[in-house]
Order: sequence, then C-alpha cells, then structure tokens
Amino acid sequence: MSDDFHVFDTTLRDGAQREGINLTVSDKLTIARHLDEFGVGFIEGGWPGANPRDTEFFQRAREEIDFRHAQLVAFGATRKAGVRVEDDPQVAALLDSGAPVITLVAKSHVGHVELALRTTPEENLAMVRDTVAYLRAQGRRVFLDCEHFFDGYVLDAVYAKQVVRTASEAGADVVVLCDTNGGMLPAQVTAVVRTVLADTGARLGIHAQDDTGCAVANTLAAVDAGATHVQCTANGYGERVGNSNLFPVVAALELKYGRRVLPEGKLAETTRISHAIAEVVNLTPSTHQPYVGVSAFAHKAGLHASAIKVDPDLYQHIDPALVGNTMRMLVSDMAGRASIELKGKELGIDLSDDRALVGRVVERVKERELAGYTYEAADASFELLLRAEVEGRPRSYFQVESWRAIVEDRPDGTHANEATVKLWAKGERIVATAEGNGPVNALDRALRVGLERIYPQLAHMELVDYKVRILEGALGTGSITRVLVSTSDGRGEWSTVGVAENVIAASWQALDDAYAYGLLRAGVEPQD
Amino acid sequence: MSDDFHVFDTTLRDGAQREGINLTVSDKLTIARHLDEFGVGFIEGGWPGANPRDTEFFQRAREEIDFRHAQLVAFGATRKAGVRVEDDPQVAALLDSGAPVITLVAKSHVGHVELALRTTPEENLAMVRDTVAYLRAQGRRVFLDCEHFFDGYVLDAVYAKQVVRTASEAGADVVVLCDTNGGMLPAQVTAVVRTVLADTGARLGIHAQDDTGCAVANTLAAVDAGATHVQCTANGYGERVGNSNLFPVVAALELKYGRRVLPEGKLAETTRISHAIAEVVNLTPSTHQPYVGVSAFAHKAGLHASAIKVDPDLYQHIDPALVGNTMRMLVSDMAGRASIELKGKELGIDLSDDRALVGRVVERVKERELAGYTYEAADASFELLLRAEVEGRPRSYFQVESWRAIVEDRPDGTHANEATVKLWAKGERIVATAEGNGPVNALDRALRVGLERIYPQLAHMELVDYKVRILEGALGTGSITRVLVSTSDGRGEWSTVGVAENVIAASWQALDDAYAYGLLRAGVEPQD
Repeated sequence: MSDDFHVFDTTLRDGAQREGINLTVSDKLTIARHLDEFGVGFIEGGWPGANPRDTEFFQRAREEIDFRHAQLVAFGATRKAGVRVEDDPQVAALLDSGAPVITLVAKSHVGHVELALRTTPEENLAMVRDTVAYLRAQGRRVFLDCEHFFDGYVLDAVYAKQVVRTASEAGADVVVLCDTNGGMLPAQVTAVVRTVLADTGARLGIHAQDDTGCAVANTLAAVDAGATHVQCTANGYGERVGNSNLFPVVAALELKYGRRVLPEGKLAETTRISHAIAEVVNLTPSTHQPYVGVSAFAHKAGLHASAIKVDPDLYQHIDPALVGNTMRMLVSDMAGRASIELKGKELGIDLSDDRALVGRVVERVKERELAGYTYEAADASFELLLRAEVEGRPRSYFQVESWRAIVEDRPDGTHANEATVKLWAKGERIVATAEGNGPVNALDRALRVGLERIYPQLAHMELVDYKVRILEGALGTGSITRVLVSTSDGRGEWSTVGVAENVIAASWQALDDAYAYGLLRAGVEPQD
Repeated sequence: MSDDFHVFDTTLRDGAQREGINLTVSDKLTIARHLDEFGVGFIEGGWPGANPRDTEFFQRAREEIDFRHAQLVAFGATRKAGVRVEDDPQVAALLDSGAPVITLVAKSHVGHVELALRTTPEENLAMVRDTVAYLRAQGRRVFLDCEHFFDGYVLDAVYAKQVVRTASEAGADVVVLCDTNGGMLPAQVTAVVRTVLADTGARLGIHAQDDTGCAVANTLAAVDAGATHVQCTANGYGERVGNSNLFPVVAALELKYGRRVLPEGKLAETTRISHAIAEVVNLTPSTHQPYVGVSAFAHKAGLHASAIKVDPDLYQHIDPALVGNTMRMLVSDMAGRASIELKGKELGIDLSDDRALVGRVVERVKERELAGYTYEAADASFELLLRAEVEGRPRSYFQVESWRAIVEDRPDGTHANEATVKLWAKGERIVATAEGNGPVNALDRALRVGLERIYPQLAHMELVDYKVRILEGALGTGSITRVLVSTSDGRGEWSTVGVAENVIAASWQALDDAYAYGLLRAGVEPQD
C-alpha cells in the first residue's frame, strides 16, 4: 500500500490494556499474523524492555513471521529527563528490538510535564528532539505520539504545537495527536487538527479513545481535517471504554470515503479477522459490533421483514458481503409470519403456500421463547422445530429413558465425574456409562459410547463451543439456565439450545438436539 | 424541563427490535418507570393496535404510572394509501391509546414510496398531511419520523424536503430526520440538517442508528446543526447494531455542551438507570459502555497507575461521580506494584511500606490469572488472597473433607438433585445432605445446612448472581470453566471466583470464597 495514508494498529500494545485481556507471547504472534493478513500498514507490538513478554515478542516476531503487508513497530518513551539519550537503557531496548519503526510517546500537555514527568517544559522539548534525532540517526523511522494532546491544546495551545513542531523538525515522519482521556467530540477534533496542520505543516495522525462513544467518529473527523495516519485497535479493545475500532474505521474509509486503505480483496475478510482476533484474546465477539457483529445485518421487525421480502437493500446501508458478513432473518415472535417464511426459504423449505403451518410455527416459537429458549442463536434447534411441524412429529433417532450424572470431590482434592444413560434406539435398549472431566463431558461421552455402534456418523461430530447463560440473574443458583452448544462435523457447525432449572438438564437437551441435527445433516433416516 | 430541547426515548419501541430482547408488558412498565425517573421528556411506548402487547401497555401505563417528567408517546404510521384517515383502524388505535403525543412514521425516500409503499409520491404527501392534521384536530401533539431521510435526501432532496414541509405545515411540532439504515457519518449529518433547517424552517429532530459506529456522534452532529430533538434508546438497544445510545448523548449534552437536558441531580443516576434497564431486558450490562460501563473508569496500565497515584484527573475525561460511576484500579499482572498498593488502599490495607509483600501478591495474582482466575471481577476473592499474604495464612472458617453432587433424570422427566458435604468446623465433623433445583443449588444448601448452626450469620447471605464462562471455547465441554458468584447480605454485595475443569467444582470454589468473605465481613473471627 502507498505510504500516503497509514492504517496503524495498536491492538498488541494499547489494545492489550483492556480489562479482561491478558496476552501470552504466542497470542501476540497469532494476532500479528491476522493483522498482517488483513493488510494494515503498521503493527505496534508492545514496549520492548518494559516487560520481558514484549521483548520476547519482538525477537520471535522477527524470527517467526514473514510479514507481507505490515511493518512492525516498537513503542517506547522519549529519554528520561537529565539523561543523555545514548545512556538511556529504555531507548537502547527500542533499538535492540530490531523494529524498523519506533513510536515514541511524549508529553504535550504542560500540566502533565510538570505533574507526572516532574520536569520543565524546555527539558521535555529537548527530550523529544534528542530521542527522535538519535533514533533517526540509527536508521529507524520514527512516529511521535503526543499524549493528552487535545486536553493540552485547550490549556496551552502554543506549547502543544511546539511539541509537534519540535518532533517534526527533529525527523519524526508523523506526529500523532492523542485524545488520551477520550473526552473529545468530532467537531472539536476537526477544528483542532485543522489548526495544528495549518500552523505546523507536520504530517499528522490521530489516536482516539472511546470515552464519549465517539472514537470512530473522532478518527474520521481528524481525517476530514487532513490527518493521514489513523491509530486503531481490533474490535476497539483498549484501556477503559476502549480505542478507536479498526474495522468500522477501515470500512468507512473504503466504502464511504472511497479511499483504498487495504490490499485488494481484504475488506471482505473483515468479519473473519475480527472474530478470529476475539477468539485469540478469549473474548466473545461482540454481537452488535458495526459491520462485523452477527447482529449487524440481522432483521427482526415485522415491518422490516415485509420490506426485505421486496428488496433487501431497503434496510441495509451496505451489502454485508463487502465486509464478509451476511444478512440474517431472526426468528422471534415480533417478526411474525414474513420472517418465518424467509427463514424457511433460507433452510430450503417453502412455506409460502401453507398459512396454517406458518401460524403453528409462530405459536410454537412464542411459547418456547416465553419459557426461556432462544432460536435467534440456535438455528439447528429451530430447524428441528420447523421440521417437526412440517413432518407432523419430531425427528427421533433415539429415546431417552433416564440419565444420571455424579460429581464427587474426594478428600485428596481430585474429582470423579461419572454419567450413565439409558436409551432406546432401533428397538434396542442401551445402558452406557462414561467418565469425563466434568458432568456434561461425562454425559456427552456416555451418549456416544451408547450410540456410536448404531450411528457411526456420531464419531465425526464434536462439541466446539459450550455457553451457559443464567436467566433471571437475581435468583442465585436457583435461576433458569440456558445452554447453547455448537457442534461440528468437520464440514460445518450448528447450534442448539436447552433450557432447564438445572445446568446439567439444560446441557442434556442441547446435546440431544445437537446429535439429532447432526444425524439429519448426515442424511440418516429417523428410526421408526 | 423546557420544551426547547427534547430528549425522546424509544427503548420500548425501536430498542425492543434488538436481537435477544423480548419484553413483556410488565417489563415495559418497569422500564418506563426507570426512564421517567431518569427524566427524559418523552417515552415512546410502542405501536398500539399493531400487537396486543403494545395496546395493553398503553392502557396499563395510563392506569398504573404517575409520570413525573415524561410524556407517553404512541408510535404509528400515516393513513393507508387510498383510505380516508377517519376510516383507518390503525390511526384509530393511536387515538384509542390515550397517549397525548403521537409519532407518525412516514416515507421520505421516493424509492421506498414506490417499492415498499406501492403508491405515488403525491399520495404519500397527502397521507402525511391528512394524518397529521387529523390527529392535531383530535387534540394530540404530533411528531413525524421521516424514515430513510438521509438516503432519500441523496436520491431526491427536493422530495425529501417536501415531506418535511408538508408535515410541518400540517401541524407536526417536530419533524425527525431518521438515518434508518445507519449508514451516515457526522460531517454528512451536519451538512444535511443545516440545509434542511435553512430551507424548510421546520423544527427538526434526529434519529440515528449505529451501523457505522457513529450514532452518538451523528446525534450530536445534528444538534450542532440546529436539531432540538434527539431520539435515543437506553444502552443503544435497537435493530441490527443498535440505536443512538441515550446515556452518552445525554452526558455529552450536559457535560460537554453545558446544556441542561435532565432534571437537577438526575445525571448522577445514569449508571444506575443504565444497569437497571439492562437487568429488565435481561442482557448483561456492557462492561465497556461509555460513561456507565464498569470498565469505563477502570485503569490497568502500570504507566497510568503510577500517574493516578499523583492525580486521578490526569487519566479521566470527567469525574466518574458525575454519572454515578466510580474509578477502579484493576488487579492484573500488567498493573504491577502501583496498582496493588492502590487496591490495598481501597480496601483499607496500607501496603506502601512492605515492598516484599506487594511483590508476593503480584506473583500470586500472575500465577492464578495464568490458571484462568480473574480478580478484576472478583474483588472479594482478591481481598481474601491479599489478606492471606498479609496474615501469612488463609482465613479459614471451615475445612472441606469431600463433597458429592448427583443429578438424575428420571423416566417420568423430572429431575432429582442431591448434594452431600463433609466438613470440619470448630473441631467438629459435619455431614450434611440437601436437595436443590440444580446441583450447585443443592451444594449451596448442603453447605448452609451443615454450617448454619455454627455460623448463624450465614442465614442472612444469599446468592444473587451466578455467571459461568467457558475458557478456551474451542474444546467443547472439556474446557476450563470459570464461575463468578455474587453474594449479598442485604447490606452489600461481593463477588468471588472459582476455576476448574468442571462447572460444579468451579462453583464450589466460588461458594467457598463467598461464605468465607461473608463471614469476614460479618466480623466473625477465623477458627483456630
């Protein structure tokens, strides 16, 4: 990509400050690979020297990753006050990282210079000048982050701009204006960036935090004013509320501004990359994230569903395929008949001629959702329900007589988990027992042990995700439990739901549906 | 509040379109009470006549709620094409609702008039004119929502403005420009609203959706251009990605614009109201929501923690108390020593003199977090860990010899849940068995049955929330399980954590900590 516009990702440095994120070196390497594949121009990997994990990351990234699009960036601070830059070990660690680009953070707010840095405004300028010039002389490209720039600008615009000018004259390629506390609004950002650009002539970047809920808008507001470098994090991860979210920023630049900022074809990878990074940091992908959330193009309202039957573009601002997402019709009692018909069509079942049937399905969904089920997130359970109505009875591959799970904590601190199932399948009574690392795992195993001989297709299926949600959280462990299970047969995944007072019983229902749907997918005929 | 500026909430109508939300009439009444208490000017309650739930809501709201700040608004459509307004049953249902204010939705996009409404642009204008005039003549205040206004404006600005003018001339007090598909960016919104205001002279409102991640910014951009009516939903709930979020919009208007839009003292209720509404709709409050999320003023970075020791305002854009939130220091291995010291101070334990102790706590936290524990969300478990290091050994109120839980699904479909615990407390061996509606509930009861005689304080404690999270979700039911338990003694709540391969074992750990902390809070001395 051209150097005229920078997409700069700081997921691995600033994003890692998010509450609940704790990355290993191997997590960081995996995320760096995803970001490089997505096509960002710069990946800020951490602060080498500040902690051993980041030092190790730079070493391993150089050895293990063959970057195709991105340049690796090391983050660090200007030299300490009163120390020669050559003698500052923190600066030396930045060079040792081997990163071709270095982002230096510097104070641009006089209050912070005095209170947090405990030095004079003049010495702070010298620290900027010396460190930028030194790193440039060592052959590194340098960007400078002006921490608290916008708040500093309000307090003392002359000094804030002096920091920008000093860094630029010393050789920083980009000076990044940071809304560190995240309190800005777009109109302010546009005004300040426009003035600083006119007064300093420096190449400017923007680093926005989301404390007012405007980080994406603030980033675009800076671009409107002439900034040509945007710092973002995947999924908006970051300190407090978070940082400017890479994905909507990139999507807006490409689709709304018509500016090419990613390599050809990469925008369509947005949803996949967003979810992959969420998996690595071990956070559930936000269902309502713009562009990439599973709900981002999901339609529920009856009014909308009727219009979408006419033309899907009537209720979508972009074609979801552009960012690798898809439109979904939600099954819910608000949606009414039009959505059930569309959903049937998605599943290849034409319901348009059978008004009574659609009515029965709507009733059944209402009744089950009232009891705590959700079909929005359990497509396979919904399809089983729909087919049961179409075929006049549920698909049935086995009948359960009873089951039992025992968890025992022994005096030595180890646990025993044992489950027994009693089933009927193809006229045969089956009793099977298995152990597992938990009661649900033990039940899952007992079910397979019992059924695999009769249905060998089960051997290819495995549970890939298991989610527990407590409904009516105000009642403690006596609440209703909803379990969602995702199952894979190596070719695809499906989701099923179970609801009960009891986490084990709810899990059992979801497992029961999961295997019934898997056998349906595998083309196995129900037993008589 | 003055009528010069409207805070208009549509949580109960547009917000209810969010995937995963399914409100009963009683939920809607509860939310209406919260919104009225918060002090919004208008509460759009639903579409009376379109579904029986909404019709019932308006009837019961009139009878049961004594609104102090808000006016109730009924939502509906303009009359049908080719029908006299007096004969349209949908319009009659709006009057029957008894709501003093009615919001009419109308098409302002010629493409939608033709494709979705299947009528002529002229008839659409007549539908707007007739319906507004009719409802005004019946003594109702009327607002008009121009659906797809911004997209329609791009296609045919003359027609879009004609709809605004027609509504305004027929007596609509406010004409609301809706970004129905949510594709707009702030600079566009400001430009369009400014032009429409200049060309029509109508009083304008804004209704923004969050598909570009800019709904809050778009709302404020319209206010910048002269809009004086903002439509929002609590927590940004709504179709697809969601609507403009009421809380950051109101906070920005009050704190950044200096415009009083809520009754005196209500802004400080923001966090509480946001969480209360999340509870009613049964969605976990977003931890990273601007202003109100538990993470919104949480600090983790070592760099920030050191600065915050100097002055908390250095890293906060507002005082969190203004919106009823609080600053939190996160315990995490990234935070380092400064955060542990601050956290100790929060708990009333001075650690500043004991560097070795702080080092040991940091090590212990690192080690446990590596194993899957999280202390960010389990303050009570962290305090127990900290006190164990300070006092040289864990607080111990009882010793567990072993426990066992059995869940049995009987042939008749009922479940039996039974748990047995074997404990030692104050030198006595205790064996207790209890049943529950699930295995964790049975264990909780067995523990209380066994201990209540020795520690009568346990009788006042109850579990109020129970959350299960599966770590490493790619391993199915064989994954590691983290359980977070919230317990209350009627005066306060505390959270504890347990981690194990097994959901029951993880729950047990969290229960164990929960009761140990509860006894500590109650001032009970540990046994010898």
